[in-house]
Amino acid sequence: MEIAKLGPAGLKRRILHTFEELPHSTLLRTEPGEDGTVLSPEEGYQVVSASAVMLEGIHFDLVYFPLRYLGMKAVTKAVARLTAMGARPVAIDFSAGLSARFEVEDVEVLMGGVKEACRLYGTSLSDCHFDSSRTGLMLSVSALGVTPEGRYLRSDTASANDLLYVTGDLGAAFLGLTLLEREKRVFDRMGNEEDFTPDFSGGEYLLRRQLQPIARIDLCPAPIGTELRPSAMTGVTEGLANDLLRLCDRSGVGCRLYEERLPIAGETKQMAVTLGLDPTAVACNGGEDYELLFALPLTDKELADGLEGVTPIGFLTDASMGCSLIRRDGSETPLCSACNPTEQPVE
Amino acid sequence: MEIAKLGPAGLKRRILHTFEELPHSTLLRTEPGEDGTVLSPEEGYQVVSASAVMLEGIHFDLVYFPLRYLGMKAVTKAVARLTAMGARPVAIDFSAGLSARFEVEDVEVLMGGVKEACRLYGTSLSDCHFDSSRTGLMLSVSALGVTPEGRYLRSDTASANDLLYVTGDLGAAFLGLTLLEREKRVFDRMGNEEDFTPDFSGGEYLLRRQLQPIARIDLCPAPIGTELRPSAMTGVTEGLANDLLRLCDRSGVGCRLYEERLPIAGETKQMAVTLGLDPTAVACNGGEDYELLFALPLTDKELADGLEGVTPIGFLTDASMGCSLIRRDGSETPLCSACNPTEQPVE
Repeated sequence: MEIAKLGPAGLKRRILHTFEELPHSTLLRTEPGEDGTVLSPEEGYQVVSASAVMLEGIHFDLVYFPLRYLGMKAVTKAVARLTAMGARPVAIDFSAGLSARFEVEDVEVLMGGVKEACRLYGTSLSDCHFDSSRTGLMLSVSALGVTPEGRYLRSDTASANDLLYVTGDLGAAFLGLTLLEREKRVFDRMGNEEDFTPDFSGGEYLLRRQLQPIARIDLCPAPIGTELRPSAMTGVTEGLANDLLRLCDRSGVGCRLYEERLPIAGETKQMAVTLGLDPTAVACNGGEDYELLFALPLTDKELADGLEGVTPIGFLTDASMGCSLIRRDGSETPLCSACNPTEQPVE
Repeated sequence: MEIAKLGPAGLKRRILHTFEELPHSTLLRTEPGEDGTVLSPEEGYQVVSASAVMLEGIHFDLVYFPLRYLGMKAVTKAVARLTAMGARPVAIDFSAGLSARFEVEDVEVLMGGVKEACRLYGTSLSDCHFDSSRTGLMLSVSALGVTPEGRYLRSDTASANDLLYVTGDLGAAFLGLTLLEREKRVFDRMGNEEDFTPDFSGGEYLLRRQLQPIARIDLCPAPIGTELRPSAMTGVTEGLANDLLRLCDRSGVGCRLYEERLPIAGETKQMAVTLGLDPTAVACNGGEDYELLFALPLTDKELADGLEGVTPIGFLTDASMGCSLIRRDGSETPLCSACNPTEQPVE
């Protein structure tokens, strides 16, 4: 159905109807359709806000990105920023700029993904807005969350000698994207033949990390809510190296990152080698991991060692020591933010 | 200077440096550069969030929209949504998708407008983000504000017999846009001649309302903070008719709007006639006024009558009475949301 048949107000009503089955957060004082969202944190709680934008041609390619996954990923991107501050998400405000190619059914699929993400993260949809777009598809998400007073985590409060930890494993989403781009090029070369079957063998996990990433809400409030008190935390979204360098810069410290400690999944290692890439570069500079990077005082080491899915990867130093990667052979190389893993020498 | 020379992080640092002169809200617990924004409302306050998106080719045309004004207007659009709920803005989170045509200096001009708006509205810039855009310029603004507990205003709480008020005057911004589009067409027909001088005579006020709109923060907390307690409120952004119909629909009431009471500036009336348009249709369906529409219990009539810049324009009825415009000759016509003022018969 053409969107013009419903109009923006009709489209919004139709979409909101499908969200009615989701529970409405008791912290929210407004329903969708108001000018804004009113959030009433419980006593002793603070409000955390984060936003994310996804632009066609920059952040995704509709040739291989299913609309439902795209809706999920846009929400994930904003929620991951909340979890990176130790906050629990409460409400999602979703805006889309829709190009003329989209029909009502496409918007329903996209918003189906948004709903799935809301359910997964336990958040309400506080509102949604649909605009026309003369150019590509544009998604914008504002997420509101709460955190116990004074318990939010920032990236500028780490100290020299703190230990560095990262959740999950790194580099998989980047290789998933690499695979998708590779098969798209093959497809393009074949002149859009209908019997094209992309070759994603051995890449199932990598594709899932690229197309269906999940914010680490399972680790929130833990490792924050337990006795464990990170001295600083940030999300791993721009690639570990980028995010670690930012944390070090903001905290005024240096770091030593151990190559041998980097958590890299078997599928990631194998595919990196198949594609002629350095697994370490992929893990350090791939991006879109949506994991958490945090610093811990040495005294908390034992608590952290007991946590599943959390890996110690190095430690922080005085700023004068700079930021280095300690290679397996013991040599040091400067941590590089702008490195493109596809330009790294193979080990 | 090319943006690539600085990179996204360098560009952000350069821009944030220019915002250092703005005071940082004491309610904010974070500096720009964190994953999100932490807001700690004072006791007895609630947090209000609102967002706005502006897309090139849909919401603005860079042929005639100066970048500085565009930065201001994007902030105004989000802040106006907060004021429409009776909230005071505290923090602005600004994101831009920049197409390749933009240089560092352009971003500085754009963000100069954002800074001017932040100063005007007394808000901090909680963060900013710059992405590339393959298509047009995209602006996304999240605004955070506060309101005394339980004092925020919604649009679904009006009652039959309430009086209807609107702030300022209506229709000017729409005619400003009409003028700009007219002169653009003349310019295009002339084949981009360099000695083209657009004819905006008599349209200075209209252009200002289109290019440099200001959210009615001057009326916030009044009319909300005074003894005056609107029963419902909303922003006038989609055209008075649209916003009034939405308020009526959400509150489950009808309305009578008096044509003779509509506040229309002299410049607006005159230009409407010059352009062969019905001033009433322009005022009802023009849009982008960024004024406030509110309902008041009859008992508050005297308080409201004393307020400058606030006009009584009608009253609310039972839903069964429908929504009508009472013409000057006493005849009733149904209020129309989708009316295009350029398609209305001239009076």
